[in-house]
Amino acid sequence: MAYELYYWPMIQGRGEFVRLALVEAGADYVDVARRGANGIPKMRKLMEGGRLPMPPFAPPFLKSGNLVVSHVANILLYLGGSHGLAPKAEASRLWLHGLQLTITDFVSEVHDTHHPLGPTLYYEQQRAMAKRRTDEFWKLRVPKYLGYFERMLKRGGPFVMGRKLTYVDLSLFQLIEGLRYAFPKRMKRFEKNVPRLLALRDRVAARPRIKAYLASDKRIAFNEHGIFRRYKALDR
Amino acid sequence: MAYELYYWPMIQGRGEFVRLALVEAGADYVDVARRGANGIPKMRKLMEGGRLPMPPFAPPFLKSGNLVVSHVANILLYLGGSHGLAPKAEASRLWLHGLQLTITDFVSEVHDTHHPLGPTLYYEQQRAMAKRRTDEFWKLRVPKYLGYFERMLKRGGPFVMGRKLTYVDLSLFQLIEGLRYAFPKRMKRFEKNVPRLLALRDRVAARPRIKAYLASDKRIAFNEHGIFRRYKALDR
Repeated sequence: MAYELYYWPMIQGRGEFVRLALVEAGADYVDVARRGANGIPKMRKLMEGGRLPMPPFAPPFLKSGNLVVSHVANILLYLGGSHGLAPKAEASRLWLHGLQLTITDFVSEVHDTHHPLGPTLYYEQQRAMAKRRTDEFWKLRVPKYLGYFERMLKRGGPFVMGRKLTYVDLSLFQLIEGLRYAFPKRMKRFEKNVPRLLALRDRVAARPRIKAYLASDKRIAFNEHGIFRRYKALDR
Repeated sequence: MAYELYYWPMIQGRGEFVRLALVEAGADYVDVARRGANGIPKMRKLMEGGRLPMPPFAPPFLKSGNLVVSHVANILLYLGGSHGLAPKAEASRLWLHGLQLTITDFVSEVHDTHHPLGPTLYYEQQRAMAKRRTDEFWKLRVPKYLGYFERMLKRGGPFVMGRKLTYVDLSLFQLIEGLRYAFPKRMKRFEKNVPRLLALRDRVAARPRIKAYLASDKRIAFNEHGIFRRYKALDR
């Protein structure tokens, strides 16, 4: 039976980290909210309708038969085991999940660059603050997070767990793509600091299934409704 | 062998969610950074020293022999299984982990109330923005998050998984305590909306091991360096 992925249909957003894993795994899945006009109502109903014994708080969530898994890192933990995208040994499995949770935190900080006052005001209402937060982000947070992953790659590579690709590598690819989209000038200056991450990005992009996916219209284009947004004022 | 918990010694912070689980489990643990002056250097060395094959990004992390687990939700996932603080069935286990990850997101938004411009500026440098973000937080985010958990309790209770306490119940206790500390006036007005969460809070506080812990000097007092901070300007 096909997996059902529930996520907003107009953005890559957090759902994209799950989509990349499903694609690389060659898994059969339906992107429910992108299939027809009743997709979003169906998603809302599952969350609020009282039909599920264990309803999720927010998208993305993945349905596999009666099983429902929510939160990106949790979904990847679940998929990783059954699709060879994670190691079997407990210590490695837990470390990998920790890496993904670090990526979760970073993604949240990326979102804060354009929405430092929270998700309930428009970007235009908080532009001045967004500029300030973005400066801090690039000065201190990007070097800290990406520097950590670069160090992890330095210990072996070419993937974070060594020779075998995991779901974390797919997520790191997405981070690089997103930063290049949202902050082309800042990222261009920064890239010299993370050569191994860039090589990893290229390696992921060249995987046959990922390559075909990126070239297809299944890959939603980056836009200014997702996590990574290109605003001129924030890219100096 | 005792667990080693690594976390900042002067705050409850994110580490407290782990401490509560260790206490309730009756587990033998050492709060490493609180034991003598070399605690923090020891913690930093583990993170940066290159000695660990799989080093964590940030505290809190838990060491169990050679196993190192980082991120609160990941540590609780790990502890839950071996200490009866989580169900065994896969669907329930994944749902519970999803609930904890929702708590992680909420905790991050709590932190943003006093630091909307990020962790690198002092509160005093961002007070005006903090006021605005806090208003949004109480108007929209607290009702959304706590309303969700209240609904989950309405389906059975007295605990989120039903009759048996899990690590998520301990974390919900900590959220209520934290909100009461940081925003006494706002929380007092809000509490009528979440009677089941309050009953859960009382139930957790009355557990013998938790009760003894809260009364001991092992429980660090809330203060203005942690996640939940009491600032007069933010509590109206």
